[in-house]
Amino acid sequence: MANGFFREQPEKIGYFDLYFRKIPDKGGLVVYAGLAQVIKYLNELHFSNSDIEYLKDLNIFDDAFLKYLGNFDFKCDVWSVEEGTPVFPNEPLVTVRGPLAQVQLLETMLLNIVNHESLIATKARRICMVARNRPVMEFGSRRAQGADAATYGARAAVIGGCSGTANVLSAKLFGLKPLGTMAHSWIQSFPSERAAFEAWMKVYPHNCLLLVDTYDVLKSGVPNAIRIFKKLKEMGINDHLGIRIDSGDITVLTQKARNMLDKAGFKNATITVSNALDEDVIQNVLEEGASIDSFGVGEKLITASSDPVLSGVYKLVATQEKGVVTPKIKLSNTVEKTTIPGFKRLYRLYDEEKRARGDLMCLDSEAVKESSNIYNSDPNKTQHVKQLHSWQLKPLQVQVFKEGKLIYQAPETMEIQTFSKKAIAELPTSCLRLKNPDIYDVYWTSQLKDLRLKMIEEFSY
Amino acid sequence: MANGFFREQPEKIGYFDLYFRKIPDKGGLVVYAGLAQVIKYLNELHFSNSDIEYLKDLNIFDDAFLKYLGNFDFKCDVWSVEEGTPVFPNEPLVTVRGPLAQVQLLETMLLNIVNHESLIATKARRICMVARNRPVMEFGSRRAQGADAATYGARAAVIGGCSGTANVLSAKLFGLKPLGTMAHSWIQSFPSERAAFEAWMKVYPHNCLLLVDTYDVLKSGVPNAIRIFKKLKEMGINDHLGIRIDSGDITVLTQKARNMLDKAGFKNATITVSNALDEDVIQNVLEEGASIDSFGVGEKLITASSDPVLSGVYKLVATQEKGVVTPKIKLSNTVEKTTIPGFKRLYRLYDEEKRARGDLMCLDSEAVKESSNIYNSDPNKTQHVKQLHSWQLKPLQVQVFKEGKLIYQAPETMEIQTFSKKAIAELPTSCLRLKNPDIYDVYWTSQLKDLRLKMIEEFSY
Repeated sequence: MANGFFREQPEKIGYFDLYFRKIPDKGGLVVYAGLAQVIKYLNELHFSNSDIEYLKDLNIFDDAFLKYLGNFDFKCDVWSVEEGTPVFPNEPLVTVRGPLAQVQLLETMLLNIVNHESLIATKARRICMVARNRPVMEFGSRRAQGADAATYGARAAVIGGCSGTANVLSAKLFGLKPLGTMAHSWIQSFPSERAAFEAWMKVYPHNCLLLVDTYDVLKSGVPNAIRIFKKLKEMGINDHLGIRIDSGDITVLTQKARNMLDKAGFKNATITVSNALDEDVIQNVLEEGASIDSFGVGEKLITASSDPVLSGVYKLVATQEKGVVTPKIKLSNTVEKTTIPGFKRLYRLYDEEKRARGDLMCLDSEAVKESSNIYNSDPNKTQHVKQLHSWQLKPLQVQVFKEGKLIYQAPETMEIQTFSKKAIAELPTSCLRLKNPDIYDVYWTSQLKDLRLKMIEEFSY
Repeated sequence: MANGFFREQPEKIGYFDLYFRKIPDKGGLVVYAGLAQVIKYLNELHFSNSDIEYLKDLNIFDDAFLKYLGNFDFKCDVWSVEEGTPVFPNEPLVTVRGPLAQVQLLETMLLNIVNHESLIATKARRICMVARNRPVMEFGSRRAQGADAATYGARAAVIGGCSGTANVLSAKLFGLKPLGTMAHSWIQSFPSERAAFEAWMKVYPHNCLLLVDTYDVLKSGVPNAIRIFKKLKEMGINDHLGIRIDSGDITVLTQKARNMLDKAGFKNATITVSNALDEDVIQNVLEEGASIDSFGVGEKLITASSDPVLSGVYKLVATQEKGVVTPKIKLSNTVEKTTIPGFKRLYRLYDEEKRARGDLMCLDSEAVKESSNIYNSDPNKTQHVKQLHSWQLKPLQVQVFKEGKLIYQAPETMEIQTFSKKAIAELPTSCLRLKNPDIYDVYWTSQLKDLRLKMIEEFSY
């Protein structure tokens, strides 16, 4: 396609919007993530000699196009929502403007990065919410879908609220807290569980989080752990004591283990649980009164296994030739698959108490006024028209690249987590719940609404 | 843990088995994949200066250990099943033997690679089976969980039977067929669908697979495609004509489109469908009589979305000190989570007609004889004991690394696909079906069975 654009429409500029139509797990919001990786990709995009040789051998590309790729000079403008922002269906998360051959080339990687990281950040938000203030550790690397899924998934999980990750590479790359405990193999490799715990204590006296379910949690693991804690106490060490339980009934085992630890005088020893956890299991066991201080969450977070795809799309919304912008639309039998035409802007609307009351999409070319009528984009909402009143408009997009040059400085990952928590706290609480959340209001200006309607009605094949 | 092993048990050798317990989608088999990437990982494993600096700054590692990592010298023996082999629960797919600190370090990446690629190859096998002899193209990169999931997932999909991929990088790296068609943006960027098709025809007269659902499949897309095909015919070009439908009712639209193409004299024009396909949808529309020549399958294949985790584990099965091998076990309340101890071998059993009749696990140290009794490892099977008779034993594992040196040459990906199809065809057909497949028999020798039982019974904490 890029080869065809380069040959047939070399002068035409395209505008593409990246957006999604459905929130995974029927949730109320998506946590947008991946921008830092999008930036890195765009900044480093090039074609090696071996790439060009390979493409040449396919015998389907023009020499002029291959030369263009070989000297690839990124010329696009890119706008994006900031990472960690809660976002909603049909909102332009990324908008790219540039030569058609260039903007088209970016589609797969932009979608791949944003779909993946936003999916995991969104899932992490759900899990961390039900864990209340207990830390959630990301433990999923071994079950992630490839190395990138592990490394960038861990980053996304932290954006969504996790306190750290067992993926050390991700911790190194993104300034995250590397976390972890021993595995069963540590215990098994010694002649006994007791010998294994003692060896651990020698190596890490100030980090004694002992895995207690290799043989039997209550008969062996916890009593052996208590023996170690007592020895440490005699040595004057009483910090970072804890146990981890990775199998069996979480509620019963944690309650009994808590009881044993307390009776032995180790009220400060923490209980961590793992084993196929997700937001439903965590909510259930906490409601049942399980005694848990922190969670290790693996495969169900790192693959978002309950709904493992964020179906973002990247659609042409306008073209530009000789300075004239022409909005473009893709029709469909269903309303939701019909695209929203035009080069657009996105705002969040705040009331006097600084609470978010909805988002607003408009055309880049129009001025939004206080007196403007705005229209709910959801065809199922009955209260369709609103007036802007005194609501304050905060732009959600920032320009990231200007004619191919990076002009935005991405925040550190931990700052994004903080930013995200704050932005989510500004939303109506009815959008936050896990099941049957309220649908957040996304409005259109009358200009945008009318443009779309007109384009649908007037369309001729 | 590796730091602890290095300090506390520097001389001890560990044996780890990589295996899974459950087949995704309640299927009858897993297609093992990922070995080529495991080999690359092990061959290139090292720690950079910046890695060592980072680890040092964490203040939890001994200097001697960091020096050991900095000069990492891989010393392990690795055995593996060959890629493309159909495999079953609890079978040792990879066995690693080496210093505990080394074998432990490999856990996360070995599982990550094998879990991911085997998952996707297994899903692709299901999809390609129901597509019968129609080509299935892998189209999922934009919805994959990160770039590696796209690139290595495409490779795994081809191992499982896909004819090619739209991921050009994967095609380049692994000698796959790069496949693809135009997207809606191509059509939208022109003043009309007709103009877009004509421009495409100019660029790719010998590859005119036209996307016909941007506006209306039957009223606009197919008639416009037929106009193009007629022009090409006048130019003497009549090859690689086709249409792709990406929305709407597949059965009705493909039947009507087929009819229109046939009436216009283009019986050779192919119909490709895409749009959220998986094995269930494909089976349904083919049963309904949809007229389809090939499939493009995206997110549901590349994420194995119906069951997106292969839960492989990597467990210590033995240790070795001063030449003496000691089998190791991890207990659990459930039979399936109790590990199978010992350094093991795996065989496939073939009858006189060269059909696979089951697999056999035994200890490395024992000799399996024709007269041996073998025991079905599935506790639910009633016909528990069998005699080997004249069944032929074919070893399923090959040695890949010997004392850290690579001694195995991995086949090309397309050869693995051929090998896999043949190996699957040797299985009982009852294992191949999608729903309620029969459980393939995996046997233990009496020595292995007795060892496990004895270790469970005699275990003391």
